[in-house]
Amino acid sequence: MNMQEIEGGVTAAKGFMAAGLRAGVKPGKENKDMAMIVSEVPAVSAGTFTRNVVKAAPVLVDQKTVADYETARAIVINSGNANACTGAAGIENVKATMAEVSRVLSIKKEEVLVCSTGVIGQQLPVDVILKGCGMLKEELTKDKKGAFDAAEAILTTDTHKKQVAVKIKIDGKEVVIGAMCKGSGMIHPNMGTMLGFITTDAAISKELLQKALSDVVEDTFNMVSVDGDTSTNDTVLVLANGLAKNPCIEEEKEAYFLFKSGLFYICEALAKMIAGDGEGCTRLFEVTALGAATKQDAKILSKAVVTSSLTKAAVFGKDANWGRIICAMGYSGVTFDPEAVDITLESEAGRIDLVKEGLATDYSEELATEILSQNPVRAYVNVHMGTYEATAWGCDLTYEYVSINADYRS
Amino acid sequence: MNMQEIEGGVTAAKGFMAAGLRAGVKPGKENKDMAMIVSEVPAVSAGTFTRNVVKAAPVLVDQKTVADYETARAIVINSGNANACTGAAGIENVKATMAEVSRVLSIKKEEVLVCSTGVIGQQLPVDVILKGCGMLKEELTKDKKGAFDAAEAILTTDTHKKQVAVKIKIDGKEVVIGAMCKGSGMIHPNMGTMLGFITTDAAISKELLQKALSDVVEDTFNMVSVDGDTSTNDTVLVLANGLAKNPCIEEEKEAYFLFKSGLFYICEALAKMIAGDGEGCTRLFEVTALGAATKQDAKILSKAVVTSSLTKAAVFGKDANWGRIICAMGYSGVTFDPEAVDITLESEAGRIDLVKEGLATDYSEELATEILSQNPVRAYVNVHMGTYEATAWGCDLTYEYVSINADYRS
Repeated sequence: MNMQEIEGGVTAAKGFMAAGLRAGVKPGKENKDMAMIVSEVPAVSAGTFTRNVVKAAPVLVDQKTVADYETARAIVINSGNANACTGAAGIENVKATMAEVSRVLSIKKEEVLVCSTGVIGQQLPVDVILKGCGMLKEELTKDKKGAFDAAEAILTTDTHKKQVAVKIKIDGKEVVIGAMCKGSGMIHPNMGTMLGFITTDAAISKELLQKALSDVVEDTFNMVSVDGDTSTNDTVLVLANGLAKNPCIEEEKEAYFLFKSGLFYICEALAKMIAGDGEGCTRLFEVTALGAATKQDAKILSKAVVTSSLTKAAVFGKDANWGRIICAMGYSGVTFDPEAVDITLESEAGRIDLVKEGLATDYSEELATEILSQNPVRAYVNVHMGTYEATAWGCDLTYEYVSINADYRS
Repeated sequence: MNMQEIEGGVTAAKGFMAAGLRAGVKPGKENKDMAMIVSEVPAVSAGTFTRNVVKAAPVLVDQKTVADYETARAIVINSGNANACTGAAGIENVKATMAEVSRVLSIKKEEVLVCSTGVIGQQLPVDVILKGCGMLKEELTKDKKGAFDAAEAILTTDTHKKQVAVKIKIDGKEVVIGAMCKGSGMIHPNMGTMLGFITTDAAISKELLQKALSDVVEDTFNMVSVDGDTSTNDTVLVLANGLAKNPCIEEEKEAYFLFKSGLFYICEALAKMIAGDGEGCTRLFEVTALGAATKQDAKILSKAVVTSSLTKAAVFGKDANWGRIICAMGYSGVTFDPEAVDITLESEAGRIDLVKEGLATDYSEELATEILSQNPVRAYVNVHMGTYEATAWGCDLTYEYVSINADYRS
């Protein structure tokens, strides 16, 4: 295998520095709440953004920045405040942040991307943010610590940092892709409150970087579902600075597909981390739809099952309530013959066919409960309508989820 | 007002008897689990059924029975077992039940409708059911007690019985409509595990009875959402036996609209009871979308808000987190300008504008919390795109919901 997972996150690739610290956006005295990623040289940029009609101010600005300018140098992120539903003042605050980062790093304003996550509808404490930009500059480092601190500073209700990095050989050169993300709750198909930041030293055209990212996000981040809500702030950004010195990838040939497989590995790993860190979740729940008539059907089926509150609660309860699985498939909107459906559960504890041709098998409830007690739990649903398949990731629904969300703001 | 709510349920209208008792389908020793409704004379029948691709055996059979035969005489219902995903044996069990009811009541088989609710994927204990049919026959009564017992016997995780009845004057005759239903959890737009039974002594053509029912269900039962899942068994049946002796309603004129307004009153009341009795719910949550460009947009917007897990958890937490409301509107798929949105909360404790033209007002969090502490809580969202409006009903998301659904089957 020409791909190897390595230690580190957004500073794993050549020429990237990062920092994370407490500026004072979040309540309390301890939590880090601002992060910065900087490339030593201009990096080609690409991004995917929330499809929510209501877009946060930084999303509106970044979309335009990524579209209008070939390269970027810095990304600055705050947690604790989403800068969403903040009108003209919200946009002004993004621009002020860009100006300040531009000043402290001596780069152009349009080379700065800004992301926010947190509570909706409150204005950013802009003085705190601006001061934070200067503080971050002082802390920037290529060291793992920089990536580590940044990965911590972007978290909200996440329970742990999410980082991953790989190296791949492309045209004889070692190319590294590193990443971090945050996400937990509000995660759904069109991207939840999910921020993802990917840095790579690959040399690749802007057009192909965007294409690879858009394709990969569709099958990874957009197949994660924690609770059906999609956020105002979701953003995945990738910067490619070319310092690996591989011949620039400008065509959809072998080098492109190698790069894309690395990007897929990164994004799938992060997607699973997000799903497995759903608010209050105790188990990652992975659903693969098989035998679908189209790719779209396979995606809809797997997402319907992974999103069903009743199925999620049953996974939490270790209850092999396959009726809820087939019921979710039934209301998904996909056409299939209920009497052709097979359902299988799998985990480290074993594998069990619950349903064959629409009817319960004579399975052991004890084994099913054992299987459901492990983490992760996988379900396979086969509708025998064709050859397409898709996987979606979610988690169980627990008391903790309700607790976290009943009083998030206080 | 020519409409008056009266006491009673499915035996309120002339010529209807009912019974409810424990036959032994449910575990335990106490719970009632079978009910029967009988009209003294043949009654015109109409029904609406789940849109889930996976339909329970009784749904498949009833759909055909209602379509093929003008009238019906009896409905028999069991709780504790859904008879869904039970294949050919499930269909046979429905037919055996029809035959037994036909035998004990001396009516035709095709005059019998059968409904089930409960666990999916297990075969009906058909001996228990057949014995129950005979027992029910002995208990049939026009008395309120019959309706009361029946309303109790159809419940699953519901916390209380749901009945309502009205009388209306139509063409100088007093027409009564009575009803009962069950539903709690799994409730969603295309009808959750929701069984509704409506009896009336109105004289009306089968065609108009079906039309009135279909229209009314769309704006009432189908606007209830507890958790986004729709069930395999959902059914609303109405029997109209004509004993009120009003001139038979055969045209869409005044008498029809009077009847339909009565049916709407009944179905709206039941829909609110279901939403307010969501699994583990502590508060009914009513969302009205205003100023929508189309009726469909208004429905989608109100349902998106009422279905959002995050919004539901915030209602439980008495947290005026309007960001989650506007976020849910944003991912609903409806197009609108976020900067034109108004959001208002209302309950017995008062009324408060949270958002005006997309921005937070300077509202009092204390008053907002007070408003959210009452039951019901109402939210109004206005997108200022047109003149259409729609209301959807749901409830808060609580610890109890998770508890009930983590281990429903045991």
